[in-house]
Amino acid sequence: MTIQPTDFNLFGSDALKAAFRRHASGVAIITSATKGGEPIGFTATSVTSLGSNPPLVSFNIAQGSSSYEHLVTGVRVAIHVLQAANLGLAQKLAGPKESRFQDAHIQWIQGVPVFVEAAAVILGSIRTRLEVESNAVVVVDIESGIEGVEAEPLLYFKRGYLTAGQRLADNF
Amino acid sequence: MTIQPTDFNLFGSDALKAAFRRHASGVAIITSATKGGEPIGFTATSVTSLGSNPPLVSFNIAQGSSSYEHLVTGVRVAIHVLQAANLGLAQKLAGPKESRFQDAHIQWIQGVPVFVEAAAVILGSIRTRLEVESNAVVVVDIESGIEGVEAEPLLYFKRGYLTAGQRLADNF
Repeated sequence: MTIQPTDFNLFGSDALKAAFRRHASGVAIITSATKGGEPIGFTATSVTSLGSNPPLVSFNIAQGSSSYEHLVTGVRVAIHVLQAANLGLAQKLAGPKESRFQDAHIQWIQGVPVFVEAAAVILGSIRTRLEVESNAVVVVDIESGIEGVEAEPLLYFKRGYLTAGQRLADNF
Repeated sequence: MTIQPTDFNLFGSDALKAAFRRHASGVAIITSATKGGEPIGFTATSVTSLGSNPPLVSFNIAQGSSSYEHLVTGVRVAIHVLQAANLGLAQKLAGPKESRFQDAHIQWIQGVPVFVEAAAVILGSIRTRLEVESNAVVVVDIESGIEGVEAEPLLYFKRGYLTAGQRLADNF
């Protein structure tokens, strides 16, 4: 394929959706607690590093999400990196919020519910939120974490979940 | 494995790095041009959607990056979603900036250099930047794009490039 100027014939959200159908992402679960101590959590494909000195992570969320009102500055969150074996957990935390913590294997750590099957977990506190239209970028100061386990990562691509495939090259 | 409170024995950037070793991401290339019309571009693993109505994308970048000074509000950028066959392109655009556009197959579209082998491309303009410590979240308004091609995605995981593997489940 050779892209030509006339190929740019999708506009606005149609263009965005076509591109993100081709884009893969890692899958994470973010958890926290309400002021009353109830667990909250959701599956996210937008978790990314925002620098290591100091260590910061960002993720994107709709302001209309049921979790958003709880995710204010200073609130502690756990960010779970998922492995392929966590497929069911990813699906559950992307499902109805009433059942997200039913029969869950959680350990409360520093006031936050942690799913004990994750490949890795980091704990941090929300530093700031950048609200843009009806969504927001949430920035988290990372405080502590576990070493984690060697595992196949869980990926999201073309509206489904996948494992990783062939290794093509090492970066360094 | 069952995570215990005492397992949280990594702190700060050590915790961040351990978690992101377990986290996979899709690989993209972002290009633009200087005011003088010189092409600029870099490989990014932080490209993520920030909502589809209106269509917005965010990516993270170090303020010390040579591209950062050019990525100001209003500047047009191209975001390329890469396929596994674009491995060499990903490596080249992550390498020395002097050689990033050597022997490149580019097409200039709306003032931006577009790599014609990408799986998909979207064009947009920078809306805002959120500077946090020495990094920044850049928010892009998406304007147009191409349908793109069916292809294996290019992933970044454990300091190397991979393809996708087995499909585990469809989401909807």
